[in-house]
Amino acid sequence: MMERRQPIPVEEAIKKVSQYQKHGEVEWVPLKNSLGRFTAEDIVADHDVPAFDRSPYDGFALRAEDTKEASSEHSIEFEVIDHIGAGMVSPKTIGPFQAIRIMTGAKIPDGANVVIMIELTKTFEKDGKPFMSLKRPLQKGHNISRQGEETLKGKVMVKKGIKVTSGVTAILATFGYAVVPVVKKPVIGIISTGTELLQVSDAMMEGKIRNSNLSMVFAQVLEAGGEPLDLGGVSDDFNQSYHAVKSALSKVDMLITTGGVSVGDFDFLPAIYEKLGAEVLFNKVAMRPGSVTTVAALPNGQLLFGLSGNPAACFVGFELFVKPIIYRWCLKENPYPSFALAKLTHDFPKANPFTRFVRAALQFTGSQLSVTPTGLDKSSAVTSIADANCFIALPGGTRGFQAGDQVNVLLFQHEGGGSPCWMPN
Amino acid sequence: MMERRQPIPVEEAIKKVSQYQKHGEVEWVPLKNSLGRFTAEDIVADHDVPAFDRSPYDGFALRAEDTKEASSEHSIEFEVIDHIGAGMVSPKTIGPFQAIRIMTGAKIPDGANVVIMIELTKTFEKDGKPFMSLKRPLQKGHNISRQGEETLKGKVMVKKGIKVTSGVTAILATFGYAVVPVVKKPVIGIISTGTELLQVSDAMMEGKIRNSNLSMVFAQVLEAGGEPLDLGGVSDDFNQSYHAVKSALSKVDMLITTGGVSVGDFDFLPAIYEKLGAEVLFNKVAMRPGSVTTVAALPNGQLLFGLSGNPAACFVGFELFVKPIIYRWCLKENPYPSFALAKLTHDFPKANPFTRFVRAALQFTGSQLSVTPTGLDKSSAVTSIADANCFIALPGGTRGFQAGDQVNVLLFQHEGGGSPCWMPN
Repeated sequence: MMERRQPIPVEEAIKKVSQYQKHGEVEWVPLKNSLGRFTAEDIVADHDVPAFDRSPYDGFALRAEDTKEASSEHSIEFEVIDHIGAGMVSPKTIGPFQAIRIMTGAKIPDGANVVIMIELTKTFEKDGKPFMSLKRPLQKGHNISRQGEETLKGKVMVKKGIKVTSGVTAILATFGYAVVPVVKKPVIGIISTGTELLQVSDAMMEGKIRNSNLSMVFAQVLEAGGEPLDLGGVSDDFNQSYHAVKSALSKVDMLITTGGVSVGDFDFLPAIYEKLGAEVLFNKVAMRPGSVTTVAALPNGQLLFGLSGNPAACFVGFELFVKPIIYRWCLKENPYPSFALAKLTHDFPKANPFTRFVRAALQFTGSQLSVTPTGLDKSSAVTSIADANCFIALPGGTRGFQAGDQVNVLLFQHEGGGSPCWMPN
Repeated sequence: MMERRQPIPVEEAIKKVSQYQKHGEVEWVPLKNSLGRFTAEDIVADHDVPAFDRSPYDGFALRAEDTKEASSEHSIEFEVIDHIGAGMVSPKTIGPFQAIRIMTGAKIPDGANVVIMIELTKTFEKDGKPFMSLKRPLQKGHNISRQGEETLKGKVMVKKGIKVTSGVTAILATFGYAVVPVVKKPVIGIISTGTELLQVSDAMMEGKIRNSNLSMVFAQVLEAGGEPLDLGGVSDDFNQSYHAVKSALSKVDMLITTGGVSVGDFDFLPAIYEKLGAEVLFNKVAMRPGSVTTVAALPNGQLLFGLSGNPAACFVGFELFVKPIIYRWCLKENPYPSFALAKLTHDFPKANPFTRFVRAALQFTGSQLSVTPTGLDKSSAVTSIADANCFIALPGGTRGFQAGDQVNVLLFQHEGGGSPCWMPN
């Protein structure tokens, strides 16, 4: 007797999984190793920026009150008593009609209250001493970058849950984070099921296919910020599969299996979940590909992701259900992908009884987004995955779409945008 | 005497640098280490996909000619002579009124020329043997995924110069690339110049700032696919700086220096380039920030990137001039960032005597792109870099812009799109 499964809408399935979100702990890593990690604490300014009054230009620091009488007819002379570059601090204090030659970024010397750009001065020698003259009155405070004018000490510069990019790295360095508090990566076990699977290094054999899902999911975990753990493969045998899953649980934060979730005679995952005492959150989603995607939760909250053995369905299942859980583990505030509207460049005549995710490539064409399916959407096709940088998300219950139609696009590679909600209508 | 420099347009500067593009060599890395690398050769299908005629469903394989007489009134019975899952090959040949129970992905058995879905059959036993009956005539070839219908052996699946993503990984695995030909990363040396620079782990000191450019550029090199090499810092001393640069050249494919390219009294890079016999391609670009960005080429074609010491200018200089050279080294066909048009969400009242790059965050709002500057665009500000995922690129010679205006956006994080041309007009 065939098992009857009740499909649930994609949004509902995502919400069910989201109830089992956990958060990772903090670990400290050297700054150079923090790229791509997620901050586990707010990153705080440990000093004002600028940290001291400094010169924004190459010029001379002096006292504005000494320039009062200057005019195009009447130049005023200053003795240049020191010469400092960025990083140097003059030990001298500027007195009346004295100046210090100062380079961009250097600290304003004591006694000075204005900087004049070098281009507006004339330098010369008098009695063997360096002098400078100027021909305009200056306003006190002009051309001085004030301590704290960009940032005050104590300000949160980067919130927790933010992915460390090169830009974030600059902030971490500025504020002395030689080691950085980042979220400990979740360990995601991967078990490949299926007697048909060859290793990548194997020669082809009759009736078999190479295991592409393992490498793909391994990479997807890395891309999302998790730590993948290859737990090997099991053939289509219940006991072997059950023991592989059971012994994996203590080694991982979450477990992904690929294959074995359909209703075929050798699809043992449903029975394994039952024997483990796991609650099956859903075993059928109203979507293509990936309708057999099954997610279960153990009593301790540990999630078991049963992804389809079909590569395209496996890919979609990961992006929709696993990635947000990894992101939330890493404290990312908006763990769901961004959506956008884009103009379809080609007809897509297939009807869509269920929500359909079509692998596609998004293009920016001026102010318009356009989107092109990257291949036949055969759910078994591995070959159209590579060029895809988004999914076209076609609502269930729709007929075909035509070139020029506006369609929803799920931007699974887009970080930063996105709110924790599902497809716009 | 102040040096006079002639600024050149951004596009011209990029083109000048592009004339020194070099390509990296191939190296073979294990599949698991290939994520984020660029393919150095075309990736070719080593077998047809499917590799054999296979079943797309759970069902029964049989001979269509045996179903001719079937109808809703007249069911026809078949003896089930075998039962195979994916990866299994039946040793049996199907004869008249025989069938083999077959699971999704399994090889069509010899003698069979059609598959019927399991839901359309009835199974029972007769004389202790398994039987199946059906009530409709079937067409020869129906429900068989034909060998090669997705991909033929020899087809180029992924071109060279493509970044390995999780999707690409699936293809590599499918076609047996246990080791992958990728481009050997260019080694990019980084020398930090400036007496004002503290290490990230140092406590703050009067007049000094922590070296944020090193960490940032190190990360930018990683993000672009290069191999950064921290060559330490030099203080504002000509001889020390000269020798640091000279001794770096044999260790790196390209060299980045940060700081020392302005016209201040301690900016030695121009003189160092001269002494090395390097051709200075430009030493002033008509842009803000980063106008002092200087690029020189040695007689052997080795590029020397003199980025500004100012963090925001340094960041822009890298993205505009260094990243495309790294991408081309990695054989990426379109090494330049994508542009898009987006609606400005806030006024940007500053006039733009030169091309201005404003750090900004791009949002997808329906079919419209909108863009928000991420901070004061003080060229010394490090703090607005972190949230930025693009630059607003404002043409030189323009006055301010207002909320609602369409502006050009340079998508420096966007892979895949982009053509090798500069800003649209």
